[in-house]
Amino acid sequence: MLLKTILWENNRVFILDQRRLPEKEVYIECSEATMVAEAITSLAIRGAPAIGIAAAMGIALGALKIAHRDFPSFYRELIPICDILKRTRPTAINLRWALQRMKGVCEANKEMDVEGIKEHMIREAIAILEEDIETNRMIGEMGKKLIRDGDVILTHCNTGALATGGYGTALGVIRKAWEENKRIKVVATETRPLFQGSRLTVWELKKEGIPLTLITDHMAGYCMQRGDINLVIVGADRIARNGDVANKIGTYTLAVLAMEHGIPFYVAAPISTFDKTIHSGEGIPIEERNGEEITTIFGKRIAPEEIMVYNPAFDITPHRYVSAIVTEKGVIRAPFENALRCIWGEKDDL
Amino acid sequence: MLLKTILWENNRVFILDQRRLPEKEVYIECSEATMVAEAITSLAIRGAPAIGIAAAMGIALGALKIAHRDFPSFYRELIPICDILKRTRPTAINLRWALQRMKGVCEANKEMDVEGIKEHMIREAIAILEEDIETNRMIGEMGKKLIRDGDVILTHCNTGALATGGYGTALGVIRKAWEENKRIKVVATETRPLFQGSRLTVWELKKEGIPLTLITDHMAGYCMQRGDINLVIVGADRIARNGDVANKIGTYTLAVLAMEHGIPFYVAAPISTFDKTIHSGEGIPIEERNGEEITTIFGKRIAPEEIMVYNPAFDITPHRYVSAIVTEKGVIRAPFENALRCIWGEKDDL
Repeated sequence: MLLKTILWENNRVFILDQRRLPEKEVYIECSEATMVAEAITSLAIRGAPAIGIAAAMGIALGALKIAHRDFPSFYRELIPICDILKRTRPTAINLRWALQRMKGVCEANKEMDVEGIKEHMIREAIAILEEDIETNRMIGEMGKKLIRDGDVILTHCNTGALATGGYGTALGVIRKAWEENKRIKVVATETRPLFQGSRLTVWELKKEGIPLTLITDHMAGYCMQRGDINLVIVGADRIARNGDVANKIGTYTLAVLAMEHGIPFYVAAPISTFDKTIHSGEGIPIEERNGEEITTIFGKRIAPEEIMVYNPAFDITPHRYVSAIVTEKGVIRAPFENALRCIWGEKDDL
Repeated sequence: MLLKTILWENNRVFILDQRRLPEKEVYIECSEATMVAEAITSLAIRGAPAIGIAAAMGIALGALKIAHRDFPSFYRELIPICDILKRTRPTAINLRWALQRMKGVCEANKEMDVEGIKEHMIREAIAILEEDIETNRMIGEMGKKLIRDGDVILTHCNTGALATGGYGTALGVIRKAWEENKRIKVVATETRPLFQGSRLTVWELKKEGIPLTLITDHMAGYCMQRGDINLVIVGADRIARNGDVANKIGTYTLAVLAMEHGIPFYVAAPISTFDKTIHSGEGIPIEERNGEEITTIFGKRIAPEEIMVYNPAFDITPHRYVSAIVTEKGVIRAPFENALRCIWGEKDDL
């Protein structure tokens, strides 16, 4: 059975608290939009698709609490709640995309009574979750051909069921290859500073019984030099029109290493991860998080006090390092923008 | 005043316990060779030059405990103690080099009475320490020209006073540039799994007042992409005749990144780090350490139980990635073997 990262039940949002994994499987029960916002900011839930779903459910929770019965007053009160959710994390596009979709539902139904709109919003949030799982399965289906029997696959951070509505993006491709009885092995990077690799990816792979080896992040180069890795596959938080990829910090280092060793470097992400409004990676905002994530572990200080720390949560991998991007619509290759315009149905003269 | 990593006093060896830094500055008092061996194995003392010194002092301690008064019996008992010390860690050549030098002192003085030999051994061990500090200062002197005013220098692991008799190799070059009032900044990688960067390098740099920024290891690529790094300088545990460098795991990843970004990649190490007997990096043994160093921090488990972990402590950087090697005899560049044969006084027809 697929793990439930987030679910809507009895007008409450239940979020699996990923900070406590793998030690404890505990759900946070959210009755307010602000509780969902807090869960996103504090990384109780993380992963671009998952935080998009959380934001959609958060705004539905927020809508339920609004007492106004006329649309303009209802909507006026909804906007600041959207803004709170949108401000939680800047890099992943999914947050913005999900909130826009939820606002779209309001506007499309503004002639309806407010209670009806609220019901539509709940249905939409649940639909976003369900579509994400379906999209992930399609990504797995499209990507499985990139993985051969016997491959050793390096992956970074967590892109599994925990990072999405379920199944996973990059880990979904790996899962699909495993389901089709390909004898694969996974090398998982621990993913400093927050150990999403050793805590979450290892936990998911172990549940599936997929053979895995855990390494620290900078061992990747040596593993590739030894010929231990056949391909790299990672997720994405936002992708520019030209194919530049924002993803978990360290992704760019892996992409450079993969190119140096002639190893394919794949990105798996839903089409919704592409930002139509941004031409290249330079336009993507990179979240910088608190340095204490690096200097402190389990509340215990590692480094001396009062030092300068640089803690970008993401980096940009220029498209020239990306062998292909696996989407639910197919595997696209450079020039990425041409393939995207085709998928988006954009006219050639744009 | 320079920090004392290891010292000989009243026929005891005092070792600063680096596992407890930066929290506590505590010395381990060793009265037996096996206590020194344990300090090396458990990483209370680490860094190639420092463990060479420790092994030399350890064997001197061992010699003091031998009761025999005739040389053959004395020497027969000394050899297994040497072997215990030699087996502590396989990659750094300094251990082997220092023990050979100590055995050489015995053999050169075998006509002397055993008490006299023991005195010679103590003097030799102390000389190895003192020469190492002097060598480091010369490395700093030779390397300082590679660093320009305003440079931002990326370094990995700890190559400072703590890794040596004092002053440091790569960190010695940085220290020298700082002493000469070059306005430099250091970017220090935390160096997983044992955090020698965040615990030790940051601690040393902070004591000197050298401006520093701490990053996780795989942020290096993004920092270079942003143009934040002017050069990389690291130490070495063993260098093959052709210039292939064994150093802390992650060094190779940094070397690939540096080349990709057109950034010089320097190695700083004493001539004694070169292994005359090994032609290329393939011949250098790489120590694999317990996976718990990766899965557990401060006794607390991060990753799920019963998983496969790969934990090489070092990697090999092929010489083509190395811009230059800074030694006490000068800065040498490719082809490294030619420069070395000149330094070693080897004949051309060898």
